[in-house]
Amino acid sequence: MSPKLSALHNRMFKAKAAKKLSFEDIGKKIGRDEVYVASIFYGQAKPSKEELEKLSAVLGLPENHLKEELGEGFYPDRGGLMSLPPTDPVLYRFYEMIQVFGYPLKAIIHEKFGDGIMSAIDFSAKVEKVENPKGDRVKITLDGKFLPYKKW
Amino acid sequence: MSPKLSALHNRMFKAKAAKKLSFEDIGKKIGRDEVYVASIFYGQAKPSKEELEKLSAVLGLPENHLKEELGEGFYPDRGGLMSLPPTDPVLYRFYEMIQVFGYPLKAIIHEKFGDGIMSAIDFSAKVEKVENPKGDRVKITLDGKFLPYKKW
Amino acid sequence: MSPKLSALHNRMFKAKAAKKLSFEDIGKKIGRDEVYVASIFYGQAKPSKEELEKLSAVLGLPENHLKEELGEGFYPDRGGLMSLPPTDPVLYRFYEMIQVFGYPLKAIIHEKFGDGIMSAIDFSAKVEKVENPKGDRVKITLDGKFLPYKKW
Amino acid sequence: MSPKLSALHNRMFKAKAAKKLSFEDIGKKIGRDEVYVASIFYGQAKPSKEELEKLSAVLGLPENHLKEELGEGFYPDRGGLMSLPPTDPVLYRFYEMIQVFGYPLKAIIHEKFGDGIMSAIDFSAKVEKVENPKGDRVKITLDGKFLPYKKW
Amino acid sequence: MSPKLSALHNRMFKAKAAKKLSFEDIGKKIGRDEVYVASIFYGQAKPSKEELEKLSAVLGLPENHLKEELGEGFYPDRGGLMSLPPTDPVLYRFYEMIQVFGYPLKAIIHEKFGDGIMSAIDFSAKVEKVENPKGDRVKITLDGKFLPYKKW
Amino acid sequence: MSPKLSALHNRMFKAKAAKKLSFEDIGKKIGRDEVYVASIFYGQAKPSKEELEKLSAVLGLPENHLKEELGEGFYPDRGGLMSLPPTDPVLYRFYEMIQVFGYPLKAIIHEKFGDGIMSAIDFSAKVEKVENPKGDRVKITLDGKFLPYKKW
Amino acid sequence: MSPKLSALHNRMFKAKAAKKLSFEDIGKKIGRDEVYVASIFYGQAKPSKEELEKLSAVLGLPENHLKEELGEGFYPDRGGLMSLPPTDPVLYRFYEMIQVFGYPLKAIIHEKFGDGIMSAIDFSAKVEKVENPKGDRVKITLDGKFLPYKKW
Amino acid sequence: MSPKLSALHNRMFKAKAAKKLSFEDIGKKIGRDEVYVASIFYGQAKPSKEELEKLSAVLGLPENHLKEELGEGFYPDRGGLMSLPPTDPVLYRFYEMIQVFGYPLKAIIHEKFGDGIMSAIDFSAKVEKVENPKGDRVKITLDGKFLPYKKW
Amino acid sequence: MSPKLSALHNRMFKAKAAKKLSFEDIGKKIGRDEVYVASIFYGQAKPSKEELEKLSAVLGLPENHLKEELGEGFYPDRGGLMSLPPTDPVLYRFYEMIQVFGYPLKAIIHEKFGDGIMSAIDFSAKVEKVENPKGDRVKITLDGKFLPYKKW
Amino acid sequence: MSPKLSALHNRMFKAKAAKKLSFEDIGKKIGRDEVYVASIFYGQAKPSKEELEKLSAVLGLPENHLKEELGEGFYPDRGGLMSLPPTDPVLYRFYEMIQVFGYPLKAIIHEKFGDGIMSAIDFSAKVEKVENPKGDRVKITLDGKFLPYKKW
Repeated sequence: MSPKLSALHNRMFKAKAAKKLSFEDIGKKIGRDEVYVASIFYGQAKPSKEELEKLSAVLGLPENHLKEELGEGFYPDRGGLMSLPPTDPVLYRFYEMIQVFGYPLKAIIHEKFGDGIMSAIDFSAKVEKVENPKGDRVKITLDGKFLPYKKW
Repeated sequence: MSPKLSALHNRMFKAKAAKKLSFEDIGKKIGRDEVYVASIFYGQAKPSKEELEKLSAVLGLPENHLKEELGEGFYPDRGGLMSLPPTDPVLYRFYEMIQVFGYPLKAIIHEKFGDGIMSAIDFSAKVEKVENPKGDRVKITLDGKFLPYKKW
Repeated sequence: MSPKLSALHNRMFKAKAAKKLSFEDIGKKIGRDEVYVASIFYGQAKPSKEELEKLSAVLGLPENHLKEELGEGFYPDRGGLMSLPPTDPVLYRFYEMIQVFGYPLKAIIHEKFGDGIMSAIDFSAKVEKVENPKGDRVKITLDGKFLPYKKW
Repeated sequence: MSPKLSALHNRMFKAKAAKKLSFEDIGKKIGRDEVYVASIFYGQAKPSKEELEKLSAVLGLPENHLKEELGEGFYPDRGGLMSLPPTDPVLYRFYEMIQVFGYPLKAIIHEKFGDGIMSAIDFSAKVEKVENPKGDRVKITLDGKFLPYKKW
Repeated sequence: MSPKLSALHNRMFKAKAAKKLSFEDIGKKIGRDEVYVASIFYGQAKPSKEELEKLSAVLGLPENHLKEELGEGFYPDRGGLMSLPPTDPVLYRFYEMIQVFGYPLKAIIHEKFGDGIMSAIDFSAKVEKVENPKGDRVKITLDGKFLPYKKW
Repeated sequence: MSPKLSALHNRMFKAKAAKKLSFEDIGKKIGRDEVYVASIFYGQAKPSKEELEKLSAVLGLPENHLKEELGEGFYPDRGGLMSLPPTDPVLYRFYEMIQVFGYPLKAIIHEKFGDGIMSAIDFSAKVEKVENPKGDRVKITLDGKFLPYKKW
Repeated sequence: MSPKLSALHNRMFKAKAAKKLSFEDIGKKIGRDEVYVASIFYGQAKPSKEELEKLSAVLGLPENHLKEELGEGFYPDRGGLMSLPPTDPVLYRFYEMIQVFGYPLKAIIHEKFGDGIMSAIDFSAKVEKVENPKGDRVKITLDGKFLPYKKW
Repeated sequence: MSPKLSALHNRMFKAKAAKKLSFEDIGKKIGRDEVYVASIFYGQAKPSKEELEKLSAVLGLPENHLKEELGEGFYPDRGGLMSLPPTDPVLYRFYEMIQVFGYPLKAIIHEKFGDGIMSAIDFSAKVEKVENPKGDRVKITLDGKFLPYKKW
Repeated sequence: MSPKLSALHNRMFKAKAAKKLSFEDIGKKIGRDEVYVASIFYGQAKPSKEELEKLSAVLGLPENHLKEELGEGFYPDRGGLMSLPPTDPVLYRFYEMIQVFGYPLKAIIHEKFGDGIMSAIDFSAKVEKVENPKGDRVKITLDGKFLPYKKW
Repeated sequence: MSPKLSALHNRMFKAKAAKKLSFEDIGKKIGRDEVYVASIFYGQAKPSKEELEKLSAVLGLPENHLKEELGEGFYPDRGGLMSLPPTDPVLYRFYEMIQVFGYPLKAIIHEKFGDGIMSAIDFSAKVEKVENPKGDRVKITLDGKFLPYKKW
């Protein structure tokens, strides 16, 4: 599908489509959150040995294909899937949130935690659908460890 | 303080510092969330007449100064405070979250809601501190209306 | 034709050319405006199941090809077809209109509607030819929902 | 107000604010559309001698100030007010419309008019508010002369 | 030859080389200026039906190949052949002329014509060789319609 | 006027405006073409001692001011007045001519002259107004020495 | 000195120069490594209350000036001092090390530690001079906590 | 694996993976540091004849393949493997270290060595794992010759 | 070898490698300086008919292959082989010389020659190895015609 | 004169102009090459104590002004005076030489010296005027130490 994804990742997407599985479905079967599962499909996360075995079973793809390319010696070269600023409106809105609310969020983090950052590595993200008569709402929760700056 | 903020916004920051008020303190006094309050300080939100009156009281700044510059006829020219990609590590981590998790989040939004976007306008953001013995965690909640694409 | 369009989209363009159909012709047959139809051809809109069935009939392309690639699980990765600023004069003129009239339009929108934006999602566009002895005129109508900024 | 506008343009904005005039109000008094009037304020249009005289009366600014800086010898250096892509959401949405609908609009213009462009010079733009129980809509009409490519 | 030109355009260049024809030769046979002919070869102009028929005869390429790809439904996506600033010295010198003489030319156009532009659409360009004992000179004549800005 | 021009250049523009002189008027008095004169005003040409003396007389500016800043030791740092691509439509159209007709012009220069370039240094430019009932035309003549590439 | 540093930071640099103190000297007096001290001077680190008091004594600058601007409520907006790639050869060589050795370093980190990153927050840097008859050597030691990617 | 590496480099990576060798393993066999070995694999270093012979033995790849492509006449075109700023978090952290600590490091180098640079050519880099109960640490040592600026 | 060079240029590099010829060797046989010869190989110079015949003999490549692609009708599209700033350290050092010594060189050229430029077209470059016990030195001689700016 | 140079550097340029000294004149008096002297004026070289004393005498500027700003503790932040690519034709021609002859020069350096670079630090540059009846020539000699890549 995407020229920026490897052939194997494209096969994973095809198998998922053919089996009409959502990321949520897959997540339930391999015991991971759906966002995390999607990150594996987009080559943004390193699946463990167990995850690859379960993915092989769920997607019907040969285990050795998955393990050879995405196993032990594979460390994702993260990012790079999109040009920045992103052109797709869904992605751009995230970018706009940084443009507009980036400094306010930084200020609040410092007021609450002091001098440091919110980790994007020791980090998780979750998406929920909140039904609302005026129009459903997307609720995204970002959860990252606070890392204080070291002095030396 | 910042050359990208107006003189009045800088005065607001100075008054806040002199009175040792956090955005949370101010938020409580004017009945708004702290992130929203910070957005006003950074020129990213349009304060209402009532909010300006309360801010005048809280900060000890003349009401007419606030109303003349940030009142009725003021519509923020949002964004533009930072270069992109941001250089500050706190801001950059937000940018990195898009780089790495942007497509996974987009995929989940489509699976849960169909073809459309999460609004960055009918939108709010909240920051919480979650204490944790292994290191406190920053929890950010983003809440935006789902907007389906129109056909015509 | 275009290296940025998928093979299937290129087949759609070829079928359209071979059958000498304009987007207006196709639009009439599938009950959509011609601009919207062109958006489907350029991969910028998600066609519904019914639209794909009608397109299959109009273009003489196998329904399952269209449904597999552009059906249920397909969510367009919008934008990205052109470099910006655009090099083609037709596209550049749109870009120039933003450069020159962007702030005036923003100002009028705020004066008429208050603090908010014109949606590009709950949005439609129409092109009309207005005959004129001094030279025909292109009339483009853009129609987008006004979205007020949320406070919280 | 804006560092990219001249001191005189800023004075014009201040006078407008002090007199609580909308661009529509001013437009009615000088016989021009509000978008065109805003273009004068943003330095994007060259006002005629008559327009300057009327503006002087409406805004209460000395006629010679306006005529010396914006009169006879003044030819606007158009554009340049914003960085591109624009950071403000109102402006960005226009940009996004090009990203997403640029090629479809180009295709329809060619189908309707042949090989040529829609002028951004022999051009006008209008903004209307269309009330709607589900949310008011912004209607923008762009009207430009079709210019066919010359052969030689 | 060039990866940015279509296969058919490359075949046209090959046929031209094989027949040892200059653009001037071809121009004489099809009744067009050599610069215009070169524009067709580089995909920057839309050839008419008659031009395609004559090109087919001159180049010895099948008429239907030319007509299918460059005929009726073909509207060039102009520009995009070079990166900007151009790296080739011939092309760069044109770019440098704008850098250095752009504002002077703009000023003279306004002094001679008023507020408006020189069209790049209703436009032609000609190259002449002017022999000179101190070194021959390249004379380029650019001829474009003056378009005054519209008021509304 | 322009922040990119020196104070002295701005004084020259002001004196020109106050005396209601066109570049053509000044050119006649100092014996130079109007485009060349404009290049001096925009800091893009190095005026000779005689030219400075005549400019002093024509503009009514003290000769020593002109000679100290623009005399003997002054060598212009050419270019840099505009961002590229230019935002002003007059300037952009020149840029578009390169985008669209750059390769065709290069090809014709090579066919007529062989391997080399058209100089932008041993170069002159002229603007003429060609009256035409369908709309006056801007005729620009660019005249540059052909420089063959050296072999060694 | 530098336009990108605040007036107070420039005063700190001046005081340091007037007292002929090296960063090493200052570091010894305030109990910090010289690189860390330099980071404070360049506005890249948040000094503690105690550090500010000691700096006040060492530099002879009023304590309240330091505390007001760099104290409690000050959280550095890190980065942004240089354009990237850097133009200064010392800075550029660091950039070149990433260009050339970035992937090799990433590969070794993964082989030694698994999937994760080297922190730039829980991080320190040290510079040593290693004398060598063939030319002294600069030895830089970078020490950052390994942070494994979280799964969820 | 990587589209930016040559086919032969990719074969080297595959052979390494198939034989389950780390760069450290290979380094021990060919008598080089692991970072240097990785630099050879990423095409960033020029292997000597002896190194190629040993690599051939270790990896089981034909000696003549290695010697023909990476031997005598091969001089790496270094860099270019990543876009800058890098998107991968491991690589980005290196980039951030320059952003934040670049000037402090430059200042210390000058204070310790005078006017000159740290070479990135007469240079080596080492990675060590320092175990730590609070989380292991990555220790990178960069060692480059100091080069003083020449006067003339 | 390089994706930016044509297949024929790559064959030329291969033939050169197979015959173990340096550019100096080839230069001696075809009567040209080695830098010029290398420029032909990198597609940066237009070889004459005689040069192609000699190259055919020296490299053992069919004369007609060389003449068809690099002969009469071939005019190099110069530049474009590298991204700028260059990533390779050898190339970057040239770029750095401009960054650091560009204005000084410009100033000296003007002081010695007046208002004009050093041609990069009527130009040659030579590389010499100057042996030196403290380390051999690279001596590059650039020789370009001085071109004075024309007045008109 | 230049906004990118410090006030003191501008005073040096003014003193030089007032005394009608060329860089060559100054170079003779302080015992340095004229290019090197110009580098000091443009803030690209660090003058020694003796050079500052001589410059003070030659230019008639107070020694302590020079020593305070450009003495002991001053280490130039090199580069950054021009945007790249440069807009001035003299500077651009240097840039073009890299574009066109960069790879050929790199290839010859490797053939003559092996794997390494030409230093831009242990480096000097000289400009000579070579008279020639067909037009004088600028001869620039660049002399840099060869630095071989280290293995480890």
